[in-house]
Amino acid sequence: MKKVGILMGSASDLPVVEKAVTTLKEYGVESEIHVYSAHRTPDEARDFALSARENGFGVLICAAGMAAHLAGAVAANTTLPVVGIPCKSSVLDGMDALLSTVMMPPGIPVATVAINGAQNAALLAVQILAVEDGKLAAKLDEARKAGAEKVLRSDKEVREKLYG
Amino acid sequence: MKKVGILMGSASDLPVVEKAVTTLKEYGVESEIHVYSAHRTPDEARDFALSARENGFGVLICAAGMAAHLAGAVAANTTLPVVGIPCKSSVLDGMDALLSTVMMPPGIPVATVAINGAQNAALLAVQILAVEDGKLAAKLDEARKAGAEKVLRSDKEVREKLYG
Amino acid sequence: MKKVGILMGSASDLPVVEKAVTTLKEYGVESEIHVYSAHRTPDEARDFALSARENGFGVLICAAGMAAHLAGAVAANTTLPVVGIPCKSSVLDGMDALLSTVMMPPGIPVATVAINGAQNAALLAVQILAVEDGKLAAKLDEARKAGAEKVLRSDKEVREKLYG
Amino acid sequence: MKKVGILMGSASDLPVVEKAVTTLKEYGVESEIHVYSAHRTPDEARDFALSARENGFGVLICAAGMAAHLAGAVAANTTLPVVGIPCKSSVLDGMDALLSTVMMPPGIPVATVAINGAQNAALLAVQILAVEDGKLAAKLDEARKAGAEKVLRSDKEVREKLYG
Amino acid sequence: MKKVGILMGSASDLPVVEKAVTTLKEYGVESEIHVYSAHRTPDEARDFALSARENGFGVLICAAGMAAHLAGAVAANTTLPVVGIPCKSSVLDGMDALLSTVMMPPGIPVATVAINGAQNAALLAVQILAVEDGKLAAKLDEARKAGAEKVLRSDKEVREKLYG
Amino acid sequence: MKKVGILMGSASDLPVVEKAVTTLKEYGVESEIHVYSAHRTPDEARDFALSARENGFGVLICAAGMAAHLAGAVAANTTLPVVGIPCKSSVLDGMDALLSTVMMPPGIPVATVAINGAQNAALLAVQILAVEDGKLAAKLDEARKAGAEKVLRSDKEVREKLYG
Amino acid sequence: MKKVGILMGSASDLPVVEKAVTTLKEYGVESEIHVYSAHRTPDEARDFALSARENGFGVLICAAGMAAHLAGAVAANTTLPVVGIPCKSSVLDGMDALLSTVMMPPGIPVATVAINGAQNAALLAVQILAVEDGKLAAKLDEARKAGAEKVLRSDKEVREKLYG
Amino acid sequence: MKKVGILMGSASDLPVVEKAVTTLKEYGVESEIHVYSAHRTPDEARDFALSARENGFGVLICAAGMAAHLAGAVAANTTLPVVGIPCKSSVLDGMDALLSTVMMPPGIPVATVAINGAQNAALLAVQILAVEDGKLAAKLDEARKAGAEKVLRSDKEVREKLYG
Repeated sequence: MKKVGILMGSASDLPVVEKAVTTLKEYGVESEIHVYSAHRTPDEARDFALSARENGFGVLICAAGMAAHLAGAVAANTTLPVVGIPCKSSVLDGMDALLSTVMMPPGIPVATVAINGAQNAALLAVQILAVEDGKLAAKLDEARKAGAEKVLRSDKEVREKLYG
Repeated sequence: MKKVGILMGSASDLPVVEKAVTTLKEYGVESEIHVYSAHRTPDEARDFALSARENGFGVLICAAGMAAHLAGAVAANTTLPVVGIPCKSSVLDGMDALLSTVMMPPGIPVATVAINGAQNAALLAVQILAVEDGKLAAKLDEARKAGAEKVLRSDKEVREKLYG
Repeated sequence: MKKVGILMGSASDLPVVEKAVTTLKEYGVESEIHVYSAHRTPDEARDFALSARENGFGVLICAAGMAAHLAGAVAANTTLPVVGIPCKSSVLDGMDALLSTVMMPPGIPVATVAINGAQNAALLAVQILAVEDGKLAAKLDEARKAGAEKVLRSDKEVREKLYG
Repeated sequence: MKKVGILMGSASDLPVVEKAVTTLKEYGVESEIHVYSAHRTPDEARDFALSARENGFGVLICAAGMAAHLAGAVAANTTLPVVGIPCKSSVLDGMDALLSTVMMPPGIPVATVAINGAQNAALLAVQILAVEDGKLAAKLDEARKAGAEKVLRSDKEVREKLYG
Repeated sequence: MKKVGILMGSASDLPVVEKAVTTLKEYGVESEIHVYSAHRTPDEARDFALSARENGFGVLICAAGMAAHLAGAVAANTTLPVVGIPCKSSVLDGMDALLSTVMMPPGIPVATVAINGAQNAALLAVQILAVEDGKLAAKLDEARKAGAEKVLRSDKEVREKLYG
Repeated sequence: MKKVGILMGSASDLPVVEKAVTTLKEYGVESEIHVYSAHRTPDEARDFALSARENGFGVLICAAGMAAHLAGAVAANTTLPVVGIPCKSSVLDGMDALLSTVMMPPGIPVATVAINGAQNAALLAVQILAVEDGKLAAKLDEARKAGAEKVLRSDKEVREKLYG
Repeated sequence: MKKVGILMGSASDLPVVEKAVTTLKEYGVESEIHVYSAHRTPDEARDFALSARENGFGVLICAAGMAAHLAGAVAANTTLPVVGIPCKSSVLDGMDALLSTVMMPPGIPVATVAINGAQNAALLAVQILAVEDGKLAAKLDEARKAGAEKVLRSDKEVREKLYG
Repeated sequence: MKKVGILMGSASDLPVVEKAVTTLKEYGVESEIHVYSAHRTPDEARDFALSARENGFGVLICAAGMAAHLAGAVAANTTLPVVGIPCKSSVLDGMDALLSTVMMPPGIPVATVAINGAQNAALLAVQILAVEDGKLAAKLDEARKAGAEKVLRSDKEVREKLYG
């Protein structure tokens, strides 16, 4: 199975990104994580992207805040699917990162998830790898069912709590 | 090769969505298009999503405006990757559709592209199918080079125009 | 008298939604609360909506955050009045939920109240039930008077506090 | 059957509001329309609201733009359900009217629909009247089906157009 | 000298509004404060406005949050200058109150100050009363000079702190 | 009676500002208009403000777009009431000008009206001059009544048009 | 004198950028213009930036729309001052480009001007070159005076037009 | 070498601005700091700007919040490059200051950095001084390398932490 590369623009994004690593582990998907800044280490980000496909990666996840260029800079150097996580920073609640990540020009898409949506970024990567992998698809279906059951348990709990 | 399903919430979204159809054709990817509204034909949207994987689809693209729920409603009923195109409508410049598409809760990702970004939605679908398809990946690389050459031609033209 | 159904997308919305339950109790209106997610338990949300009228509900209140699709998904499956509460989540202050709830396309209205406005959602439900119920309307009028008197008491208190 | 009152803040809102009148007619619901400004004719707006219930109204629809206070001013003087239509004016795309209409304080709800959403305002009014009127509810269900069929017809047409 | 009326929509606005009271006191301007809600006590707000000029008021200051209608409702019932203070509440950082206060339709102005800008609201009221009152104008000029000197003192302090 | 000074940052603001001139004429208030830019002619703007009170002005109206500093720059150099008109320019719909005008720091208020709200700026100036001028106040009251009658005429016309 | 490099992300930005070229010409500053996309020709943009200082450039101006990464990508590869012009595109009025350009992370500044502010970008470049060039500084001062005189001429014209 | 002037609108901006002072020290660039308000001490701000070039300054940095006019007011009185730092204040997260700083009209540029971006403002000033100063340019290059190495160290640390 292809690996998932996880890049973040700054080590300070780790508390958000960590959730992507653990989610991928739950699905048995191998990941490789890097702190590469589109602005402070542009060559490392570029070289990683340029060789990602031949190095066995199937999807790249990029997390960054503010003028979040990392996902776009990586997408400019690979034709692998790139998933962008806009990170909330100290001002503007992540709206700057969201627009910087999602509003890509024609030709270079970034698959953007919610602000700080690291879990969904990982799930999306798994979904992409599962297109041609029936076992992985089955795991996704199971997790979906488990998610539904969790909601239904809380459904009961809330009613018991409120109406006793 | 897996097919790409293209759903739009209203026939009025067709001028935007058409670009996705033509882009997929350029890559020789088969598509199937539907007008299914998350609100007016919820059952058809749901049934399409529920059976999409077994019907040979690999990626689903969903385009909608305003409180754009189509991508989310489809994603709730499949574990295939779902690409969301937020469409600009008569007010708010598509910001409503962008937030309604991208801010999905944990568990159910939607791979969101730019407002009205139908071409990139199709390219993202091709990128996803190309993860395990070397020929398709090669086509993406060629198109990327062609895109770069087009920019470099306009680079020359602009300089000739301005400095003669 | 018809019942009021209260749906929330996640048990984490309960601190907001609880106010709706207590407000309905004050008016002697029976409510039934559920945690049903438009994305994680779409079938439960749909089935609840489809059978709500025949099950004795008169109004449905739906609370959700982020890309808040619950009210729209419920409204798509019933012609009962649906009241939407956009919930504030960890980013964007509820603006995402507000636009996802209120900007519904023609044909499927959602009666939207303020961000986190659970008390008003309940009052609106009572107002709807009171259209054909004079006693309930009288209770609303009394509460309105009590509300005005409360303001006028604080009017006195503030003046006493400031000018002694 | 109760009547629906339709108030607009300015005659310039008529092109938007007209859709509410025609929609109510389609359902055989009697309406009465007024141009009453919360700011220029506050007494007329207030008196209309104060006597609306005894004058046979069941729901009041209020349309206004900019600092759209009409729905709130009316809601302050009645306990009937008040539906607010935020109208787009020459700047800010109706965002000012949306926030002025929907962000009502606890105690005085306004059931807000989308910017310029006059058709949905009327449908919401019909839904409210249909809570205790089975025939009207049946009409809503029929219209819902007709709406779905219209979508499905355009679904066919779009496929025929694109794939021949 | 004319008095200044200070109205707030809720006693919870007092921590913001208090600054207006103290500022007016500094200028020896008599004020009268009220908690009158545009929505919960519309008649009291209206009656206060209707009789304000004959009761000796020269300016009215109105503070409110959310869909802040108080200033507009008061302005609709007097031709005295009305100063609006948009108050920040629990969501949206006061942007809702700002737009609800400032975007008034032609014919009914509200002199809007910054979000939570109670001190400036009071100063504006003093400036209005000072148009025909040379002594008050002189006090404003003195305060302006004192304000400048305060800045220049902090200018020195900052340099001493930083460069020693 | 005191004069009203009208300053605009650029001659291109004249189509908006003209309405202020005509409104002041209707009330018999003398005005003096200037094109003074806070950025391109800061000295003229400053000198005008510094001598405005002694030159017989009672209120200053300032209109500007984009980073609209004119009202603030004038307010910094006078203690006369300064009314700010945020002007819509080619992008952002005037939101930049609104925030640049209204969010003034403590000590230097600007009485801000709606985006492009030149008529209300003039009315506010008249209201300020009318605080100590009973005749002017009477004119404002008459105009208010005329405005109400105009609304009530359109109220009739709309009903006749719609219901015949 | 050092040259100014002007980069734009797409030839479609030329109508905006052209103003920068003509402004630089007015000051006798040599410029070199390129269409280099941060996403479609990342290597050309990078190589240009890496060698810009040794190639005789003193300032680089970068114009781009949407998720405007060009200025940031260039700034990541040079320590020359980089001026960013956020360009308005078909949606969001340039707000996406503004935030993508200005919200740069610590270490890599971009000197951002107004949306579509190509003339100011050129003037800023001239100001930077003029820090150590007295003749160029003198030209800037003259242009500033000419700008003031132009405003004062329009000041006269407006008064003549309005008051005859 | 030319000095850098640092102006802030209020001593309360010091915690943000301090970073600019320390950054300039790291590069051996002399700075002079002042608390000058565009509104409370307009003359001091203006006089400082008017004489800045002859007093040996090469760049001016201006930090202010809310309706942040300081950078614009300074830029109006000098043709030196002016760098603007929009400061976050108690509401709106600095968006008001950003728009007030960056949206300058043609003729008077302000080189705007990110909200609270004091470090980048200082770096931009150093970059400007380094255009004609090879030693300073070399220092910038070294710091850039050090910045990259710091990222690469955290790259290693993050991987060690996550994968052991």
